[in-house]
Amino acid sequence: MHPLIQHIQRITGVREAAEASILPFFETCSFRKKAFLLEEGHHCHAYFFVIRGCLRLFFADQNGIEQTMQFALEHWWMTDLEAFRSGRRSAYSIQALEATEVMIIGPENYSRMLDEVPLMEKYFRRVYERAYAASLLRVQMISRMPKHEFYELFESKYPDFIQRVPQKILASFLGFTPEYLSELRKKRTEKKR
Amino acid sequence: MHPLIQHIQRITGVREAAEASILPFFETCSFRKKAFLLEEGHHCHAYFFVIRGCLRLFFADQNGIEQTMQFALEHWWMTDLEAFRSGRRSAYSIQALEATEVMIIGPENYSRMLDEVPLMEKYFRRVYERAYAASLLRVQMISRMPKHEFYELFESKYPDFIQRVPQKILASFLGFTPEYLSELRKKRTEKKR
Repeated sequence: MHPLIQHIQRITGVREAAEASILPFFETCSFRKKAFLLEEGHHCHAYFFVIRGCLRLFFADQNGIEQTMQFALEHWWMTDLEAFRSGRRSAYSIQALEATEVMIIGPENYSRMLDEVPLMEKYFRRVYERAYAASLLRVQMISRMPKHEFYELFESKYPDFIQRVPQKILASFLGFTPEYLSELRKKRTEKKR
Repeated sequence: MHPLIQHIQRITGVREAAEASILPFFETCSFRKKAFLLEEGHHCHAYFFVIRGCLRLFFADQNGIEQTMQFALEHWWMTDLEAFRSGRRSAYSIQALEATEVMIIGPENYSRMLDEVPLMEKYFRRVYERAYAASLLRVQMISRMPKHEFYELFESKYPDFIQRVPQKILASFLGFTPEYLSELRKKRTEKKR
């Protein structure tokens, strides 16, 4: 079964997700490692669903340092949602951290699909509900937890990330310096021995 | 027309939102100023829609300082979404900043309503899509913009807030010290004269 249809069935609990009414809204595309799928300041005409690989969404802060806000592994959605919804220029860039295969839907097809396939309203309501809840939780955990506890929690929740994402990028996402992250990982490796 | 039905029509663009199929899922409740609608560490059985008044969602950080994460004015939704969804204990408190009237829906009624009224899937999909996009934008603006620019943007987007929310709480939401916010407001008032 197609990975997107599988995901829709898992998230909605509905078994009868019809491939033929959903997949034609999408295109499939492959990107090499380090390729840009979206560049800051450009219009954002694409919403990505990751079939295989890993994406990151980032921006350059006041000091020109890249701040990674989000990752997307297999079965995650990614876009600059504000730019995609509004048609305004993007405030973020999206880059492939590995060779990555995605499904792509544009704004018009996204609207049409939601109008024509009610199941997709349920699906995206649940996708956004989770994403929104998680984004609030993340801000709170960064503010409240001691840094090493936050790292341990993150490691237990997303073990794949720790392996797949370059240290420097992971550090920026966690709000750590690369040095602090490297020290923390060293300590934890020693502890496990 | 009932304010919730009005809001559903506005967000979905659908004129035929049937009061009789939606409102019975809710209760209406009034809280005095400073009342707690949810306390940190308790279970979260309620999702609030503000009819009149103002709520804030906050937690105490590592140093015991209250950090305000969100506000809700008229026609905004508020809950600890993670706790409401999962049944786990809440990581936040919710407090009324003014005398506040809300509609309340519990987790079971929320699920039933979404199953029975497809329009509500569309409505909440759009509510969450906006909220999620806004939460990402907020983190980015805090990280990237000079503080006084962020304040000016916030003031132009939400003039009501600046008037209605106590300075100390507004400062915590903006990531400012109360002293910095007070200085900024003084400067801006002088400029306008």
